[in-house]
This record gives sequence, structure tokens and C-alpha cells, in this order.
Amino acid sequence: MSWFNPVSIIEKKRDGLPLSREEIRGFIEGLTQGLVEDYQATAFLMATYFNGMTPEETVALTEAMLESGERVDLSSISRIKVDKHSTGGVGDKVSLILAPLAAACGLVVPMMAGRGLGHSGGTLDKLESIPGFKVRLSQADTLKVLRDVGCVIIGQTDAIAPADKKLYSLRDVTGTVPCVPLICGSILSKKLAEGTDALILDVKVGSGAFMKTLPEAKNLAKNLISVAKKMGLSARALITDMNQPLGYAAGNAIEVIECIEILKNEKPSGHGDLSSTDLRELTLHTCAHMLVLGKKVKSLADGRKLALTKLQDGSAWEKFKQMVQAQGGSTAWIESPPTEALSPARIEWKTRKRGYIRRMDTEKLGKILVEMGGGRKKASDTVDPAVGFWMHHKLGDLVKAKETLATAFVSKKMGPNHLAEIETEFLSAIEISPTRSKVPPLIHAQVL
Amino acid sequence: MSWFNPVSIIEKKRDGLPLSREEIRGFIEGLTQGLVEDYQATAFLMATYFNGMTPEETVALTEAMLESGERVDLSSISRIKVDKHSTGGVGDKVSLILAPLAAACGLVVPMMAGRGLGHSGGTLDKLESIPGFKVRLSQADTLKVLRDVGCVIIGQTDAIAPADKKLYSLRDVTGTVPCVPLICGSILSKKLAEGTDALILDVKVGSGAFMKTLPEAKNLAKNLISVAKKMGLSARALITDMNQPLGYAAGNAIEVIECIEILKNEKPSGHGDLSSTDLRELTLHTCAHMLVLGKKVKSLADGRKLALTKLQDGSAWEKFKQMVQAQGGSTAWIESPPTEALSPARIEWKTRKRGYIRRMDTEKLGKILVEMGGGRKKASDTVDPAVGFWMHHKLGDLVKAKETLATAFVSKKMGPNHLAEIETEFLSAIEISPTRSKVPPLIHAQVL
Repeated sequence: MSWFNPVSIIEKKRDGLPLSREEIRGFIEGLTQGLVEDYQATAFLMATYFNGMTPEETVALTEAMLESGERVDLSSISRIKVDKHSTGGVGDKVSLILAPLAAACGLVVPMMAGRGLGHSGGTLDKLESIPGFKVRLSQADTLKVLRDVGCVIIGQTDAIAPADKKLYSLRDVTGTVPCVPLICGSILSKKLAEGTDALILDVKVGSGAFMKTLPEAKNLAKNLISVAKKMGLSARALITDMNQPLGYAAGNAIEVIECIEILKNEKPSGHGDLSSTDLRELTLHTCAHMLVLGKKVKSLADGRKLALTKLQDGSAWEKFKQMVQAQGGSTAWIESPPTEALSPARIEWKTRKRGYIRRMDTEKLGKILVEMGGGRKKASDTVDPAVGFWMHHKLGDLVKAKETLATAFVSKKMGPNHLAEIETEFLSAIEISPTRSKVPPLIHAQVL
Repeated sequence: MSWFNPVSIIEKKRDGLPLSREEIRGFIEGLTQGLVEDYQATAFLMATYFNGMTPEETVALTEAMLESGERVDLSSISRIKVDKHSTGGVGDKVSLILAPLAAACGLVVPMMAGRGLGHSGGTLDKLESIPGFKVRLSQADTLKVLRDVGCVIIGQTDAIAPADKKLYSLRDVTGTVPCVPLICGSILSKKLAEGTDALILDVKVGSGAFMKTLPEAKNLAKNLISVAKKMGLSARALITDMNQPLGYAAGNAIEVIECIEILKNEKPSGHGDLSSTDLRELTLHTCAHMLVLGKKVKSLADGRKLALTKLQDGSAWEKFKQMVQAQGGSTAWIESPPTEALSPARIEWKTRKRGYIRRMDTEKLGKILVEMGGGRKKASDTVDPAVGFWMHHKLGDLVKAKETLATAFVSKKMGPNHLAEIETEFLSAIEISPTRSKVPPLIHAQVL
């Protein structure tokens, strides 16, 4: 690296001039090494928010972030490794069913997942509702679980893409999270580091997603796929609906319970009907794409068929149990989640008037869960696994006056005023209208 | 201040929504108190670079920066206080002549000046070439000098607009210096704090100025005046030329010497002709505006006449001597600057071909001075007062081949390679053409 001046790189980005691979690499290396100050990084991030990045710049950014840390070496596992990433939302618990299901279909799934932040939940928090479940494994243990079980769900270690850790924590407090090239760099540097061969992206769109409109979501998906492919990672994307919570459960233990029931092909203890839930359908469809990516099947139809078989015959449930056991979690708990897994303080939130559920402010629902203690306002917060709510209805449903919309499991620490406030918030997030309007599709588009 | 979230303020500015007075005040107070992190401030600054500020926001910013520190109380001096601020350039030594000249005309000039940074020189650095000259005075001493002499030139104390100090140092390293509302806040918060009643702004335009084009300079001037007036400070602006160094000298001691010769009405020891120099003319014209602002005269013509009288009759020179003495400087030195004030290592930089001087890259000339040791790359650098150069020509002059363009006074520390490099840089900054082109006017416009 020749003479390196972070200010001139910020100025170039500010002026909309494309940066060279060397400049981007220098900036990211400088940030990791302390040659670039945090206050310079955030000015750069904001300039990038306004001026974007070319595909070449985004590739260079992803590459630099990837190379800031270690890459997991999975070459000793010869089978094709396929992973999934979701841009996040409320009630999005697909990974918990999908990883064991795909493994049951013969794929290897080395999943590095995240924690909840803001209104969006996190797979690791959900899994930690299972007593003993460890999301931090040594590289040797990770490889052993992958080899023995075929899937593993762990947290990102400190050695993986440290530049992303730093940049993400800065973006989070400077209004620079919603920026396509930065999102691409963040997601893909981690996925490339974890050693997967292929990736299915679930880009959420709607009132509970970071991307509120279909064109925004498509644009993000196209950028993600193009950068992934340029870096040798085969990828495709689904644009899926987040205008309501996925499934019926929102919370940590409660979402694990919903997943277990689907994995066990049991009648839901919450709401909805097993065979028709959006959660189950999206999981099967995503698994079908993974099977095509992993060359296990030739068509989506074959993929869905195989996935459905492995779900219905109990193979996916067996894999889930093996994974939980291999990661130190209590199999007794998942075999039969105890009543005390959910908070004993239960409240029914009821409609005020009759009508059709027309719209849900899903981001608000996610924030209500955070307010209840089930999520994080900042990264250092802890989550209460026992709080959450069962939704009783989906968009388009007809509800009567004083009908229960949700059963909430609340912390005993919450006083009556706080509870009343949250109920008001909840009711204001559910729009009920005299006429039924069109319900958005579960899958809006696929980007190959 | 109710619940304060710096992220939501950054996001509002990012999204182009106007901020309330309370939000801006909260952000600036938060920055001073450590509730807003530097990395959040720079994201805000970059968002402001892109989305600008409304006049109301700029006033609120200026107010908040002003109120982050102390205000000097000059109410015990009943005469009208008038100050001048220049946006900076190369060879801009007007303040050194202007402050004593305006004082000689009966105004009180409480001037807080700055240091050189980047290609632009600083009044304080120049004055410190005079042995003993103190730019840090207690408030009591400042008042005494103002009362006894009528003018004082000091540095900004730590108690004045600390938010500006912090913001400026962050802007300097994040590419957010050239931003009109931030420039307005920075200049005006300090000028309001120093207790002046009126202000003349010298907004430089051209190859050696921050503003490279006339529309940019006019826009800055209009914004400065509008914000100043809204805050009760009467103000006007001159847009003046910075397409070549002002006067003939560039450096620290050498510029003081040029000023002394003008103050003493002496034949210049450098170049040019006393009565016609741009430096002298601009100083007289600026003084005329100050006299109108300070209600000493009714018209600019009367102002110029009074200023010329006080310059020619030696009153301005007397005031300068009094000020230097009152601030601890050596009057022997200014009476007769010793030869060793300038570096004994002298070099002639000569033309390669005959022709008319068509253009000077004045910013480059400023950077050459920095490279010679006469300026600062970063705020913690020290300057060598003895280095600099006399220009022998102005734009439009006809020069022969191998004619001297400048006499440089260089540090003995510079090796021959470095000297050769600087000479090449210097010659590349002076464009010589076979035909004479139009020379830009000294004063491009005035904004009242």
C-alpha cells in the first residue's frame, strides 16, 4: 500500500467518484488496524449512503471485509455446503426448521446466525431458549457437528470478518444501516467466511422488513446475487412477505415451540392449521431452492417433494434433535417444552370492533416484543426467552368485536400502566376495516 | 430537553427533513457533553454536507455553537466594535494592516484570528514572527489593549465556542469542511462570541480559495450575512479575488515585512509599486466598509478617503506599533526587521519561456509554502517563520525566458532533491501563455 490518506478516500466517495479496489481495501484494512478513525469511517459510511457503490466497489468492499478475518475451512467435508440468510423480520423462525430439514435431505448446512436487534428477531436468541444450547463452538467442534449431523447453527466468532463487526456497530448508531452496498458487504463477507458453497437469500419486504417496497427488495436481492456470483458463491434469492409476522408466534421460546410442532408434524398448540401455515410453506419452498443449488434435485418441484417427505417422515425432526444434542441443548426440553418455558403472566389482547384485518404494522409488533423484554434496543441488552405472543389471526381474517387477537406472555416485572400502554400500541398496529382487501402473497418474487 | 436520541436526529438530516431548534441544540449540547459520540457527529456532518440546512437550522446551529462556550463582554467599551473575517487564501495578510488602520480611524477592532491550516495561511502565525508577540491574552488584558489601542489580534480561547473547536477538528479529517451551513456556524459563532457589533466578511474566490467559483462564493456570502443579521450582528461581504497570492509575499515573517512597508508608506523591499498594490487597495476598501458599518462615515467614498489619510499620515503605523507593544512584541524588530528574519538560503525560481502569466494555481502555491515549512499539514505541526517567497509578478505580466518569477527563502534542512521537486511544482503552478488574457478583478462583488 502506497501513501494512504483516509480523508481523500472519503472526499472521493463524497464527490461520487468510484474508488479503486486498493483504496477500498486500504480503508477497510486501515479501519481494522486503527489507521482510520471511527469518526472517519462513519463519514465514509454516510457518503456511501448518499452516493452508493458500483458493483466493482461493492465486490472490493466485500472482499476487504472478508479478508479482515479468518475463513472457515470446510474443504474436508466433500458434500455441497448450502446456507440461507434472511434479511430479518418478526416471527421469522425459518432457519430453525430449515437447517435440519435440508440436512435431512442430504445437504450440509454450516449456518452462522445472528442475534435480534431493533424490531427484528435473531436465530441465536431463539435457540438459547433451549437449556444448555451452545451457539459458540470451537472450529473443531463445529466441523464435528457438521460431519456427524449435517447442520450446525452457531454465532459469528470474533475471528470472522472483524471489519464487519466494527462497521456494523458504527452503522447501527449513525443511521447508515439501510444502504445496499453496505448490506451486501456485511452479509456476504460473513457467508463467504463461513465456507458455504451456495446461498439462498430470503429478502423480506413489507411493513416489518427493512425494505418496505418490492422495488427496493428486488434491487437489494439483485445486488446481493451479483456480488455473490462475482465472488464465486452461487446464490439465488426469494423476496418474501413481511407484512405480518411469519407463522403465529413472536418471541424466543414461543417461536422454538412453534418450530418443534412443525418439525414433529403436530397440531399447533398456538393457532393456525399445520399443513397450511405460511411458515411451513416458506420453509419447504426455501429448502427446495437449496436442494437445487446443492444439486440434490433437478427442479423445484422435485426439491419440494423431497423436503416434504423428509419433514413428514420425521427425518427433519431427528436431525433437529441431533443438532440440539450435539450443541449441548436439552433434548428433554425440546421433546416436551415445559409450561414454564413461557411466562405464566398471560393476557388476551382483544379487538375493539368487528371487521377484516387489513394491515399490520409489523415493525411496531416487533418493537412491542422488544418493549416486553423479548428483544434488544442495544447489542448489550439481554433478552427474556419466556415473553412473547401468539397471534390468533392472519391478514384478511374476519374478526368479531372483543375477539382475542393475541395471547401475550408478559414479564411479571411489567406494571399495569406499562401493560396498558403496550396493549394500546398493539391494537394501533392492527388495522381492522369493514371490507376485506387483498392479502399480499407469501412469495413476491424469486431472483436467480 | 426531553428524551434525546442522536440516531434519530442523524436519520432526519439524512432523509432531508428539517430539524427543530431543540434537536440541533440537543445534538450540539450532546456533543459538548459527550452524549453524542464523535462518530455520530461526523455522520451528521456528512448528511448535512449532502442535504444542507435551512436558514432557520443554520441559525439554530450557530446559536448552539455560540452557547457551547463563553461570550466576551465588551459592553464596557462604548464605541462601535467592528471586525473582519476572511475565508482565507495565500498571501492574505490584510488583517495585519486593517486592524490598526480601522483603529486609527476611530473604530474598535476586537479581532480573534486563526492559524494556518492546509494551503491557507493564518494571521496568528504571521504575528508570531515578531519576537515576543503574544496571541493569548487574559480577558482583562484583551480589554485593556482594546481600550488603550483600539485594536487587538488574539487567538480563540478554549472557552470560546468549544463545540466549534470539536466540530472543526472533525470536519477537517472527514471531508466536510466545504459545507455552507457548517462554515456559517463556525465563523459566526466565534465572531458573535468575541463581542463585535458588526462584521465585514472577505469571501475569497478563485484558484487559491475554498470557493472556486463566483456563484459558490456569493451563495456563502449571502448565507453568512443572512444568518449574521438574524442573530443581531450587522454584516456585509466582499467577494474578492484569490486567483493569485494577495500582494507579493507568501510566508510568515515575509508577510509581516510586506505589511510593515505598506503601513510605513515605504518603497517595497520585495516587488511591486506601493501605491498600486492589490493588498493595499483591498485593505483600504475593506476599511471603508468597516467605517460605514461602524457609522464613522456615510459613504464608501468618505470611508476610503478617511482610511487613506490615516494610512498616509502614519496613524495606522502608530496604532500597529502600539498594538505590537501592548501584546508584548518587539518594536525594534518591526521598526527595522532584521535580515535574519528571512532564511539566508535563497533561491531564484525562473521562467522557462517567454510569455504572459495567464493563470496561477494558487492553492498549489499555498501547498508549496506548507512543504517549505511555512504552514501546517495538521494542527499540531509547527511553522518556520523564516521561510517563504517573494513573487516578482502578478497575473497578466509579460515575462522573459529565464526571468525570475519568485525569490524563495528556504530552510537549510531541505536537500537538493527536495528543492528541485519544489521548484518543479512551483513552475507547474504558473501558466505562461503567448497571449495575454483578461486579469480577474480584485473585487468581484459586494453583498450587503
